[in-house]
Amino acid sequence: MAENGAKRIRLGMVGGGTGAFIGYVHRIAARIDGDYDLVAGALSSRPEVAKESGRNIGLAEDRIYTSYEEMARAEAARPDGIEAVAIVTPNHMHFGPTKAFLEAGIHVICDKPITSTLEDARKLLDIKPKNGAKFLLTHNYTGYPLIRQARELVKSGALGKIRVVQVEYPQDWLAVEADEGNKQASWRTDPSKSGAGGAIGDIGTHAYNLARFVTGLKTEAVAADLDAFVPGRQLDDNVHIMLRFEGGAKGMLWASQVAVGHENGLQLRVYGEKASIEWRQDNPNYMWYSEFGKPKQLLTRGGAISSPAASGMNIRIPGGHPEGYLEAFATLYSQFAAVIRGDGADYVDVLPSLADGIEGMQFITASVKSSQNDSRWTKLSDV
Amino acid sequence: MAENGAKRIRLGMVGGGTGAFIGYVHRIAARIDGDYDLVAGALSSRPEVAKESGRNIGLAEDRIYTSYEEMARAEAARPDGIEAVAIVTPNHMHFGPTKAFLEAGIHVICDKPITSTLEDARKLLDIKPKNGAKFLLTHNYTGYPLIRQARELVKSGALGKIRVVQVEYPQDWLAVEADEGNKQASWRTDPSKSGAGGAIGDIGTHAYNLARFVTGLKTEAVAADLDAFVPGRQLDDNVHIMLRFEGGAKGMLWASQVAVGHENGLQLRVYGEKASIEWRQDNPNYMWYSEFGKPKQLLTRGGAISSPAASGMNIRIPGGHPEGYLEAFATLYSQFAAVIRGDGADYVDVLPSLADGIEGMQFITASVKSSQNDSRWTKLSDV
Amino acid sequence: MAENGAKRIRLGMVGGGTGAFIGYVHRIAARIDGDYDLVAGALSSRPEVAKESGRNIGLAEDRIYTSYEEMARAEAARPDGIEAVAIVTPNHMHFGPTKAFLEAGIHVICDKPITSTLEDARKLLDIKPKNGAKFLLTHNYTGYPLIRQARELVKSGALGKIRVVQVEYPQDWLAVEADEGNKQASWRTDPSKSGAGGAIGDIGTHAYNLARFVTGLKTEAVAADLDAFVPGRQLDDNVHIMLRFEGGAKGMLWASQVAVGHENGLQLRVYGEKASIEWRQDNPNYMWYSEFGKPKQLLTRGGAISSPAASGMNIRIPGGHPEGYLEAFATLYSQFAAVIRGDGADYVDVLPSLADGIEGMQFITASVKSSQNDSRWTKLSDV
Amino acid sequence: MAENGAKRIRLGMVGGGTGAFIGYVHRIAARIDGDYDLVAGALSSRPEVAKESGRNIGLAEDRIYTSYEEMARAEAARPDGIEAVAIVTPNHMHFGPTKAFLEAGIHVICDKPITSTLEDARKLLDIKPKNGAKFLLTHNYTGYPLIRQARELVKSGALGKIRVVQVEYPQDWLAVEADEGNKQASWRTDPSKSGAGGAIGDIGTHAYNLARFVTGLKTEAVAADLDAFVPGRQLDDNVHIMLRFEGGAKGMLWASQVAVGHENGLQLRVYGEKASIEWRQDNPNYMWYSEFGKPKQLLTRGGAISSPAASGMNIRIPGGHPEGYLEAFATLYSQFAAVIRGDGADYVDVLPSLADGIEGMQFITASVKSSQNDSRWTKLSDV
Repeated sequence: MAENGAKRIRLGMVGGGTGAFIGYVHRIAARIDGDYDLVAGALSSRPEVAKESGRNIGLAEDRIYTSYEEMARAEAARPDGIEAVAIVTPNHMHFGPTKAFLEAGIHVICDKPITSTLEDARKLLDIKPKNGAKFLLTHNYTGYPLIRQARELVKSGALGKIRVVQVEYPQDWLAVEADEGNKQASWRTDPSKSGAGGAIGDIGTHAYNLARFVTGLKTEAVAADLDAFVPGRQLDDNVHIMLRFEGGAKGMLWASQVAVGHENGLQLRVYGEKASIEWRQDNPNYMWYSEFGKPKQLLTRGGAISSPAASGMNIRIPGGHPEGYLEAFATLYSQFAAVIRGDGADYVDVLPSLADGIEGMQFITASVKSSQNDSRWTKLSDV
Repeated sequence: MAENGAKRIRLGMVGGGTGAFIGYVHRIAARIDGDYDLVAGALSSRPEVAKESGRNIGLAEDRIYTSYEEMARAEAARPDGIEAVAIVTPNHMHFGPTKAFLEAGIHVICDKPITSTLEDARKLLDIKPKNGAKFLLTHNYTGYPLIRQARELVKSGALGKIRVVQVEYPQDWLAVEADEGNKQASWRTDPSKSGAGGAIGDIGTHAYNLARFVTGLKTEAVAADLDAFVPGRQLDDNVHIMLRFEGGAKGMLWASQVAVGHENGLQLRVYGEKASIEWRQDNPNYMWYSEFGKPKQLLTRGGAISSPAASGMNIRIPGGHPEGYLEAFATLYSQFAAVIRGDGADYVDVLPSLADGIEGMQFITASVKSSQNDSRWTKLSDV
Repeated sequence: MAENGAKRIRLGMVGGGTGAFIGYVHRIAARIDGDYDLVAGALSSRPEVAKESGRNIGLAEDRIYTSYEEMARAEAARPDGIEAVAIVTPNHMHFGPTKAFLEAGIHVICDKPITSTLEDARKLLDIKPKNGAKFLLTHNYTGYPLIRQARELVKSGALGKIRVVQVEYPQDWLAVEADEGNKQASWRTDPSKSGAGGAIGDIGTHAYNLARFVTGLKTEAVAADLDAFVPGRQLDDNVHIMLRFEGGAKGMLWASQVAVGHENGLQLRVYGEKASIEWRQDNPNYMWYSEFGKPKQLLTRGGAISSPAASGMNIRIPGGHPEGYLEAFATLYSQFAAVIRGDGADYVDVLPSLADGIEGMQFITASVKSSQNDSRWTKLSDV
Repeated sequence: MAENGAKRIRLGMVGGGTGAFIGYVHRIAARIDGDYDLVAGALSSRPEVAKESGRNIGLAEDRIYTSYEEMARAEAARPDGIEAVAIVTPNHMHFGPTKAFLEAGIHVICDKPITSTLEDARKLLDIKPKNGAKFLLTHNYTGYPLIRQARELVKSGALGKIRVVQVEYPQDWLAVEADEGNKQASWRTDPSKSGAGGAIGDIGTHAYNLARFVTGLKTEAVAADLDAFVPGRQLDDNVHIMLRFEGGAKGMLWASQVAVGHENGLQLRVYGEKASIEWRQDNPNYMWYSEFGKPKQLLTRGGAISSPAASGMNIRIPGGHPEGYLEAFATLYSQFAAVIRGDGADYVDVLPSLADGIEGMQFITASVKSSQNDSRWTKLSDV
């Protein structure tokens, strides 16, 4: 991770004013490996919040903006203008800034899901990035070293042909009606801001992306049963989906915001003809690797038989000293920095892209459609 | 558990010759609490195996039979004849003996699933048991003390209205083609002996029954996707099912015989509006109980806040000294003994019955039908 | 396990009247594999309790005794007299019955510790058992299949030379003053019944024996720090001991009855030059096996690379179906049955013996002495 | 954590050239919360390594030094000179820089143990820091949120009077002779660089400090048995210690570098009259809290009943998203930044200090002395 003499990349941020969860996370992720300097921001559409938030994180007064359009224009014009921007607004506010900055020749790091509608997502394909500006979607769980190793194990054939994929992401923070004042909850449960999906968009896409990232399997169709259990809720808070992959593998995906007792219980299990892997986010430095007919092995980040992705320069501290969510997030940032600098060829394949974002929206859209259609199998290619 | 001065019940067995797994288990279960004496058996249809097996377990020569019909007749006629019989044959051989012994006035303890076809299961309703002979279906996992406590927690309202049920039973012993000589595998993968379902009948019914036992929810419909992953296999070895319960709760059930890395990974998770429980068979003396907004609590068999079902006379040894599969199985045996003796009124409600057996066959049949019909929601009441 | 056509061994019991914990455990252990018939008992020194207890477990009236001496005499004289006896009284009542029955030619199964004083233990060596009557000490944890496998792994050299042994047995049931009426607590905390050691005798000996059983290391000396934390308690309820073994290995032993949060947390960890094992009683069907420089492997009872001791005929049910405390206990009973019948040569080496019992008393005595002597290193051979 | 508009503190570093583990960790810890800018360094005593290392981390050429004395002088003289310095050299090189920078009025962040000899540690007391320069010892494990909460639980009386403390820190990276070229291993096993203690200094002090930090108990005496198991090793690689605390509590401490199967298995368990806590570094976001007579509760960082130390502004991300070693380390850095700025009064009490460092050296010295004296109880106040 960095510390190779390279200059820091000048970074801006859209959204993420004081009190916002994900903006704060992005800022830490950008700092951890020392590859970025955050120098500009349109942190809020409310001027006074934007000002105060900007000061809190040490921005110069003239680089605190109240509109992303203005920021894109002004920064593109500065000789010391930002080279990249992090977009951490609610889903319906992803499209506009992404388009503005890419067309201004500024690299974009965008939170997921990529947009609030599939239509918007597809329009992203029409954007002509200036000067080869690049795009990163922060499906941050793909940055966990053992998730990278899991992907490599699958690719290497160690698991044999994949048969079954079980993925889940249970939470309980929306098990009861959230308070009016809960900023995190309010936009996520509002279709106008979040899009057509609730839990499926917020966490279901993470689970889906993780399964796709590790297995490489192409999804054929979904059969979904979505529910909104909490009275008055407009969007789904529990998601049951069966999956069919090309080549015959099958899967189940469960995402829930009402699963009492779970904080962020992301879990992936992949079963092949020869071996399986099991991984949980609540203790992400360990992964079961089970070869048929042999004792289960507990792989560790940085431990014995770690693949390059889970050892050496791709982790920061030795096995047994736990890394967590922020380090996984930072890995996306630092590897995207390498891509920006032109020495990140090895990472292009593993960094979540525009295509992943569009597929995520297809997944959401097909699932909602299937659920509305009595759980009929619905092809991703048909939405 | 027993040791109350009551006389031992004279028991016979059909099936379970030397080398059979489940017969051996039934014999241990019958011994543990000292409520039964095994005194007669038709342990195999092959005379020499029946003889040798009978001698091995200490049966008198004149009470080793080679046909269950003969055994039912002869034992019913003896003054010291068996009072109860355990039927531990392959599924297609459950119906005949059940009918014969019940009509001979002998109580029946039958392994699951109750029959190999729903048709057979329904015919059981036409049997007229003589002298009030009773029936027990050994869905043995219901005998685990913490499963009993889970049921009581649901009943008490501690979990609130149930929203989501996640149940799974992964194994890996059939992940590759089983050897010709594997007696356990051969009948289970043969439709003529096992019935229309493979994994769904062998372990899916256990998972289903467990979910039903704990939650008390009535099933409305299933949407199933069944696969036979191993080349040449005639019956399903992987089962994905979505469940809809009356009242709006939803569920997922996964049963697999090809999930590499799992031995007998039965796991149940039930989420209500107020609390949840999580239980795994691989460490059955512990159960998570999570109330919304409070730290998760680890309940133990015999530990603090154990319900009567998980403490006192319903367990044998103090908390921290693990009980296992055999003790759970034995609990069904000893409580059925109480029922036979007329002092088991408290247990009637928790002991798996004919009705449970028929519902299990409905579950299998509806799931197979749904799977053949592109996973359409299929009502249990429609099969 | 049994079911080989052998006749059941006629068994008696001394102690273990209704309500006694360990007597009930012995009875179940004797029943599980079908090797014994319990036909006589001196279950209590109080005649009415003896009578009622005897009836509860189905003894014939004429074989319910109120004195062990009478029982030894009478049973030895009967043609159908008991062949073996289980002694399950408090520690200070072990010596007398052991002597009486061995000298009457009746095999003895005795609970641990073998006596309440080292002096008594040594006097056992002077007994002349009639007709080769044999002795079993129920250090029941040695019956766990994976403990057997651990021992074999050490013997095979798989761990290399042993360096470090960490063993502990924390409980919390005596963390506060026990109720007057708690029969289990009262004799265990009474020096006249329990001997010079409290926790060290009740559970410390188990931990010590387990470490010795698995490693085969000979103990050189102990440095002990014993405490009685609960006000008014006469015997130790917390035990800290450092261990020195011949050949240079070192160990730590912790036993506690005041470790809030632990039920019966017996745990053994053995570290050699090449590999280590870790095992906990609370989930006894799993054991970590870690080879240096390789991922940790989770061995399972009955699973891949199980040694004979943890598979085949030495376990009852397949891996993944948990066995527990009672099965481990039953294994001692059934293997002692084989020894009694003359076909248990393979088991002689693993069944806890008189020598183990005497060493256990040396361990207790040396530890108490060391603790009284400001934790000076005290040789077992010096007490 | 920071982001409150405060200016970044200018930081220097002594030691920590390219390839050094702990220097890299300090740099990440300094970056995570955005409270420091690393602007100067004497990263190596070898000029070419110092230069290259300085460039790699982006230092200006004129602030790359090859001697800490020169750096202290030059930086103290600059108007934009460093305000704080991190000392990450081997133990024997802690004293000199600490003295030089404190006397130059520059705050010192020093890795542990504080020095290589108790004599040096005591001489630190004679230093007269200029301008109130402050000192932080990076016993980083004290920065884990749940360790902070554990300390608060003890302080609040929730555990009652403490009886037993069990702490351990097993590793296996020195289980075999380390390669010549292993920089981490070579100085740690060299008495001239590491001091009189091997494992006891490197990890035993961490374990000791953690127990002291959480319990607040004062240590009376130690009885130690230290070993060097690997042939040719000059310093201990396995440490067994019994502890006596003022007021009667007892403890055991195990530290090992030869415990095959452990990466960094730091674990703390504290048992009081009323409750206990159990915490492990390998999954640091969870802590058992067991009240006597109640089910065990699993506390989570950021979860229900978190104390302020484990929630709100003292953690960065919600419960269920794991934080790790680097965040705990960063918490020391950011709270020391608050102290430096004059708004960290709340943190003074929890940040490891000079006094903790001296006590750590007393612990090492007393343990080595006890071990040399056949494990006699040795008072910390007597060394």
